[in-house]
Amino acid sequence: MLLHEKADQAQALLAETGLDCWLTFARETDLHPDPGMEQVVGAGVVRNSAFFFGASGERIAIVANFDTSAIRAKGIFREVIGYDEDIRGPLLEVLRRLDPRQIGLNYSLDDVTADGLTHGHWLLLQQLLSGTPYLERLTSAASLLARLRGRKSPAEVERIRQAVAVTEQIVGWLTPQIRPGLSEWELAALVHARFAELGVAPAWPAEGCPIVNSGPSSDLGHTYPSATVRIEPGHLVHIDLGVRRDGYCSDLQRMWYVRRPGESAPPADVQRAFSTVVRAIEAGAAALRPGVRGFEVDASARKVVVDAGYSEFKHGLGHGLGRAVHDGGTILGPRWPCYGRNVEAIVEVGNVFTLELGVPTASGFIGLEEDVLVTATGCEFLSSWQRKLMLI
Amino acid sequence: MLLHEKADQAQALLAETGLDCWLTFARETDLHPDPGMEQVVGAGVVRNSAFFFGASGERIAIVANFDTSAIRAKGIFREVIGYDEDIRGPLLEVLRRLDPRQIGLNYSLDDVTADGLTHGHWLLLQQLLSGTPYLERLTSAASLLARLRGRKSPAEVERIRQAVAVTEQIVGWLTPQIRPGLSEWELAALVHARFAELGVAPAWPAEGCPIVNSGPSSDLGHTYPSATVRIEPGHLVHIDLGVRRDGYCSDLQRMWYVRRPGESAPPADVQRAFSTVVRAIEAGAAALRPGVRGFEVDASARKVVVDAGYSEFKHGLGHGLGRAVHDGGTILGPRWPCYGRNVEAIVEVGNVFTLELGVPTASGFIGLEEDVLVTATGCEFLSSWQRKLMLI
Repeated sequence: MLLHEKADQAQALLAETGLDCWLTFARETDLHPDPGMEQVVGAGVVRNSAFFFGASGERIAIVANFDTSAIRAKGIFREVIGYDEDIRGPLLEVLRRLDPRQIGLNYSLDDVTADGLTHGHWLLLQQLLSGTPYLERLTSAASLLARLRGRKSPAEVERIRQAVAVTEQIVGWLTPQIRPGLSEWELAALVHARFAELGVAPAWPAEGCPIVNSGPSSDLGHTYPSATVRIEPGHLVHIDLGVRRDGYCSDLQRMWYVRRPGESAPPADVQRAFSTVVRAIEAGAAALRPGVRGFEVDASARKVVVDAGYSEFKHGLGHGLGRAVHDGGTILGPRWPCYGRNVEAIVEVGNVFTLELGVPTASGFIGLEEDVLVTATGCEFLSSWQRKLMLI
Repeated sequence: MLLHEKADQAQALLAETGLDCWLTFARETDLHPDPGMEQVVGAGVVRNSAFFFGASGERIAIVANFDTSAIRAKGIFREVIGYDEDIRGPLLEVLRRLDPRQIGLNYSLDDVTADGLTHGHWLLLQQLLSGTPYLERLTSAASLLARLRGRKSPAEVERIRQAVAVTEQIVGWLTPQIRPGLSEWELAALVHARFAELGVAPAWPAEGCPIVNSGPSSDLGHTYPSATVRIEPGHLVHIDLGVRRDGYCSDLQRMWYVRRPGESAPPADVQRAFSTVVRAIEAGAAALRPGVRGFEVDASARKVVVDAGYSEFKHGLGHGLGRAVHDGGTILGPRWPCYGRNVEAIVEVGNVFTLELGVPTASGFIGLEEDVLVTATGCEFLSSWQRKLMLI
């Protein structure tokens, strides 16, 4: 079971990261899902709750009595302590017992999936621990969380592979539906119907999943498909879509060109732009291997685009992919302040990344996105790697 | 449009709460939904984003360029500033322009829907503002957030009313399905099928919504319906269910008694326990009116239960209900440390609360839950108020 596999991995990571205690402190997890918690707890809680992993193999949960049953049912925590009115007593008792030198918490300035603890809850924890020696021992568990999430197990990779396969299937089904006159919104509605038929959820909120862009006047970025922008001959049609299946995500961008009457191939500038994007992804993939730093991979792809005379894409080449579509950890991005230290981080075996970028043309936006797995020697494409424009 | 209504309300609350600036600082909102943001922003963001409401009517959003389009589409922010690499420049520019004396942020020790800011993101904000006078002006916007969320507009109340109506419809449909031999899990599956048919989502994760308890050996609390506990003659059947419809929730508990052969009415102890729960809710409702404090309402209901010789219920009598099923703000609960200052807070006109409690019997758990709206003089039941055990 995936939950147990990740819990064992977390246990091993304590030693590796030099932490002797990892504490997830959470409440109302439907409102405040903690990305660290879904990996090893697997059930939600309402009242203040504490989940301990200790360096000597301890696994202790403290939750309100009405939450104990759901936590016990998952079988991860050997000890599940219930309380009614106040978590402070059992919390201090467990800390006395473990007496950790450092208590790693789920927060990080840069890594979003390592940042599940809310600020108010941090302040509450300070209050609960006031007057005890544990207050001084609080630290960030970000390095543990990044590795736990980033190093996908074979079972996790298999789930991502399945999510990618379903997405490719949707793309294949969509191709014969694309025709002049259809609005971006109508194309998105077809995809939504397909999601429902296949029993998969969109990887991000349906309102903007898929992103659909037809032609040069379409809004770019994280936009909603337009009901008034319609596919026309001479348009590039671009979609960015992902699904969530068995808890894991895909994230792909795919491209079509709608030929004008009498046109057998896309215009030369479109072909040149498309092949530049393909070559940039190829360069990124060639640079992607264990030990390389995130910004180095990004730079390889970015150079291809800039050398070809296009303006730089305004985002990183790739992000982690897993339970979340932006899965945190190492980012394959430029050294821009918005990416913080994530782009300095090291690529590891078992990481799954997107490789994505685009350039604008007079016929519309050209963007491609592939999903790849880092192997011992390089990377493996989990997606089919679009290297030719699909023609309508 | 609801979003505009709440944005106007937020604007008015700035003066009322003495804040001259409310700043929602957010990122990756699919991973970290900020309960403050869904009320007035209405779209998600990926990169570091800042949403300002100023005392002089300013509404300014700073988001990554690929997020500007979705934010503009909502029409809430008069100024939407895009950036690519670093939010720091535009962030300081806007702060210089507003020059607020206090900058209210989304954090709270106690109130979970006012606690959307993560701790790592708080630390990042500290870093972004270091060396500026604004660092010292950061404070909590919890009082604004509690009122914004708690004071439901007529349009919001109507949505909750509709969610309650659908839930009552499901309960009515369910009654003739309840029969000996059916497992708790099978009963839950019937409800899930009904959710799908009616196009509503469960108000909390489907795995535990509805909660189903049949007979005295069923697990209580936030549990999963059992595939092995089956309805038997002589069982009390209890469900706790809620739906989310048009973004607003219901939350009800309903009760049936399955008669034994020859039995015309439930055993006397069951009847006594049931009527005690009904009377306790009645007492809570009688105490609920604007100006009263949360713990006072709870105490009125709790007294009925204790005076009747039953053990106290191990939770508060009621919680706010709205966009979230646990909607934050004032809690109608006892003065236990786990509830913090939420139970000291004042009840206001337009608040919507649950009134819920239960007692155990030899035939199973008796729990009821109603949804009520605070009016100028007391409260109005939005639900049908179960005052008789339904008999199977």
